[in-house]
Amino acid sequence: MENLDANVNQTQNGRARRGRLSRHNTPNDAPVFEGRKIPAYELLDAPSLARIEDQADWILSEIGIEFRGDDIALDLFAAAGATVDGARVRFVPGLARELCATAPTQFDLHGRDPGNTVTLGGDNVVLMPGYGSPFVTDLQAGRRYATLKDFRNFVKLSYASPWLQHSGGTIVEPTDVPVNKRHLDMMLAHLTLSTKPFMGGVTSPERAQDSIEMARLVFGRDFMDRHAVMQANINVNSPLIYDHTMSGALRVYAAANQCVCVSPAIFAGAMGPLSPAAVAAQTLAEAMAGIALVQLVRPGCPVVFGSFHSTMNLKSGALTFGSPEANMTTMALSQLGRRLGVPTRSGGGQITAANAPDGQAMQDSTGAMWATLLSGAHQVWHAAGWLEGGLVMSYEKFVMDLDHCGAMLKMLNGFRTDDEAFGRDAYLETGPGENFLSTSHTLRHYASANFAPATPEAGPYEMWVENGALTADQRAAIRWRQMLSEYQQPEMPNDIGTALSEFVAERKASMPDEWY
Amino acid sequence: MENLDANVNQTQNGRARRGRLSRHNTPNDAPVFEGRKIPAYELLDAPSLARIEDQADWILSEIGIEFRGDDIALDLFAAAGATVDGARVRFVPGLARELCATAPTQFDLHGRDPGNTVTLGGDNVVLMPGYGSPFVTDLQAGRRYATLKDFRNFVKLSYASPWLQHSGGTIVEPTDVPVNKRHLDMMLAHLTLSTKPFMGGVTSPERAQDSIEMARLVFGRDFMDRHAVMQANINVNSPLIYDHTMSGALRVYAAANQCVCVSPAIFAGAMGPLSPAAVAAQTLAEAMAGIALVQLVRPGCPVVFGSFHSTMNLKSGALTFGSPEANMTTMALSQLGRRLGVPTRSGGGQITAANAPDGQAMQDSTGAMWATLLSGAHQVWHAAGWLEGGLVMSYEKFVMDLDHCGAMLKMLNGFRTDDEAFGRDAYLETGPGENFLSTSHTLRHYASANFAPATPEAGPYEMWVENGALTADQRAAIRWRQMLSEYQQPEMPNDIGTALSEFVAERKASMPDEWY
Repeated sequence: MENLDANVNQTQNGRARRGRLSRHNTPNDAPVFEGRKIPAYELLDAPSLARIEDQADWILSEIGIEFRGDDIALDLFAAAGATVDGARVRFVPGLARELCATAPTQFDLHGRDPGNTVTLGGDNVVLMPGYGSPFVTDLQAGRRYATLKDFRNFVKLSYASPWLQHSGGTIVEPTDVPVNKRHLDMMLAHLTLSTKPFMGGVTSPERAQDSIEMARLVFGRDFMDRHAVMQANINVNSPLIYDHTMSGALRVYAAANQCVCVSPAIFAGAMGPLSPAAVAAQTLAEAMAGIALVQLVRPGCPVVFGSFHSTMNLKSGALTFGSPEANMTTMALSQLGRRLGVPTRSGGGQITAANAPDGQAMQDSTGAMWATLLSGAHQVWHAAGWLEGGLVMSYEKFVMDLDHCGAMLKMLNGFRTDDEAFGRDAYLETGPGENFLSTSHTLRHYASANFAPATPEAGPYEMWVENGALTADQRAAIRWRQMLSEYQQPEMPNDIGTALSEFVAERKASMPDEWY
Repeated sequence: MENLDANVNQTQNGRARRGRLSRHNTPNDAPVFEGRKIPAYELLDAPSLARIEDQADWILSEIGIEFRGDDIALDLFAAAGATVDGARVRFVPGLARELCATAPTQFDLHGRDPGNTVTLGGDNVVLMPGYGSPFVTDLQAGRRYATLKDFRNFVKLSYASPWLQHSGGTIVEPTDVPVNKRHLDMMLAHLTLSTKPFMGGVTSPERAQDSIEMARLVFGRDFMDRHAVMQANINVNSPLIYDHTMSGALRVYAAANQCVCVSPAIFAGAMGPLSPAAVAAQTLAEAMAGIALVQLVRPGCPVVFGSFHSTMNLKSGALTFGSPEANMTTMALSQLGRRLGVPTRSGGGQITAANAPDGQAMQDSTGAMWATLLSGAHQVWHAAGWLEGGLVMSYEKFVMDLDHCGAMLKMLNGFRTDDEAFGRDAYLETGPGENFLSTSHTLRHYASANFAPATPEAGPYEMWVENGALTADQRAAIRWRQMLSEYQQPEMPNDIGTALSEFVAERKASMPDEWY
């Protein structure tokens, strides 16, 4: 293992232990998720997957992908053997996949606290909060535009949770900050309020560069040239378009050797044909084109095969999430990512079109999360908080989702069939018709046997009524306030904190506010 | 295919088509579920499954199972080579499994409408409503004791849903009917208000016999001697006990060649050791003993390897459902059932400890349903309605669960990768950046592409607020009333209806009311 550079060493707390699987230290002594120990579900057989890959190749060779307004990208593709016709880039079958081959199968994303470094790929699972909501809601204050305070709150909640291994990116839009300065405040929050990996700004190449410069103040330029500490969310303008903002930001992150997650964004029937197979194929085609560009800019740069897709009610036009068709696409994409050989961010997460953290919200979210995690996705975006198709981040749903994240990670931790699991001594102590609660076996294991949700239990009906008959979202309202009140900011060396503040102040002063 | 006997032919409506997979006709022209086309998830590898089976054999040989107060059962076991010591029956390793070997791997459960006949085993999936709740609740009338009217309502709702292929058993307890006469009214409701398969009474051998006699009035004695038309829910008094009520009812159904589902009932840590592996092993041991008894009474009698298990908060003592530990047990049991070679009712269903149809209820239920169906269970009890760990059947949750049943069946229907699914013509009609909504491909498929929940959509936030900001359960309250108001009772020949009514009247008159 290479040593972290001086700046990073200053922030170490002596807990750094790095095995095959990353350790996720959290402020409290929460359980550690040690990596997937159960098999990934294989929805599709190899011939079906090959047909999807053939369709992706057909799209790339016959239709092509447009990189609009980015001559540098077009030149790179032409030099690599692709056919460039105006903005349209076409790849003979197999070429795009070949260009992706230099991307690593597995890599580390370094946390400011090395104990929070995560590994993307292999048996590892990295969960992160929702991304991009312009609104927030909570049961008491209701639905309103998100502010920087909300953004900071969600960074704190993500840091405090043992079930999110990543601080996320634009968790909510800090709409009280000018558009052209938001990335500075968001970076400052991720870097100072958390020590988990995070995502930087991508809304212009300049903001991408600012984000990288701020990270360099903490991690050091040399360290970052060799190691990824941050990710970029590069969304394709599906169908089949990269605009210059996205491809420009992509090239900035790639040049800095930071992780680029390329995520096509397809609502089936609108930005692509309506079938799960077609969405999976188009996602693969679009993503391979972007990953290829990353590798042309800097071979070996870490990437994530991303996706964002869902379905619509094709009669009403309403977006739908957690549908069986979308869940199947998610599962197929996990398989396609394994075949591509790069870590996968697989479609789902805990997503819903519901407007409240109600039964529909959790039905949609829970199903989508099963599809995502059982199929073997490595990184899960939108694992907590999403409502209204991502328009809203709900404080209550955030902690309800966290409980389910923890439950799923417990499941991924596997099923023991060793002698101690079977508890033969308990049968010898008791017998038919007798209770096992007081056996030595139960007493040895009762405290740690079962996953414990953090949202207060409802309890039996009569007690529940006496306590006000609080529904799950109402009990969750207690929990997130408790988490925020117990939050403790991680330490940061003074000189780094000062450097970050000065950078932000300087950049803010250098440009007038822009509000659109 | 053998012909149904005269009585059954009278009730045919000409739609009977029986392929490898059963057809589920419903009052409306609902989509048909044609069987599982996606692989079952294999949580455990073969060595782990073998260790669980070894543990089951250890329990059966070293501890044994008690059949209390049933000398006939004990004699049958002794004659079959088991060691009988008082009520305790011990099986040398392998014996219980050997005795189960005459049970069929797959069989039909005949509906009064042959179009509603289902197949248990193989690629088939049979969902049924909850079982046994003494209470019901709905948002308007609140929580109260269930009555015969509620029972009849849930039979109607189950009949009306395309996603439940089975009418269930004691869906709710008709607490306004004397305990010793409930089975008569419940059988009458299943037989007259629905044409789907159902479960009969098991609370005493006599009530079991009454149930069979009533079914014979509809299906004919000869037909039923050759074909299963009903199921019995035989619960083990876990740990390791069959009481004479259950083993007596088991023998009545077995003698009549009707399907016996043997379900151990284990809360981990109380009725068995606390680990998923231990619960799976004990479930297998207890179930094999019961299935062996069925086969000793009547070799070849159809059985289902059942299970009912969950977890507890071992600190507070509260029962928990949908936990990761319970879900893993459910998945393991599906695998163990396949190895045993009989159809499996696998633990889960849409179960929860929540007191309201809220986010927790659906989070618990949805996860448990994924575990159940993805692992390959053939029959799912408690697929709709459960609240409060089964104490309460909720009208609203019933229809919310139905939506998820439909979604899961859509997923089990599989993922097409044929040329039409890829929609190449749509790409040739459009191009990068263009919308696919008006392509011929979308127009060809938009009406049937996606599963459509029946609970009214929330819609976008502003419209949702204008319409009263109804949460999912509030919208579900509209849906179940609509289903009941649209319910149409299936026809039944007058002579059969009269015979059933007379049987019920006669049996009721023959005994005084018993209320406990």
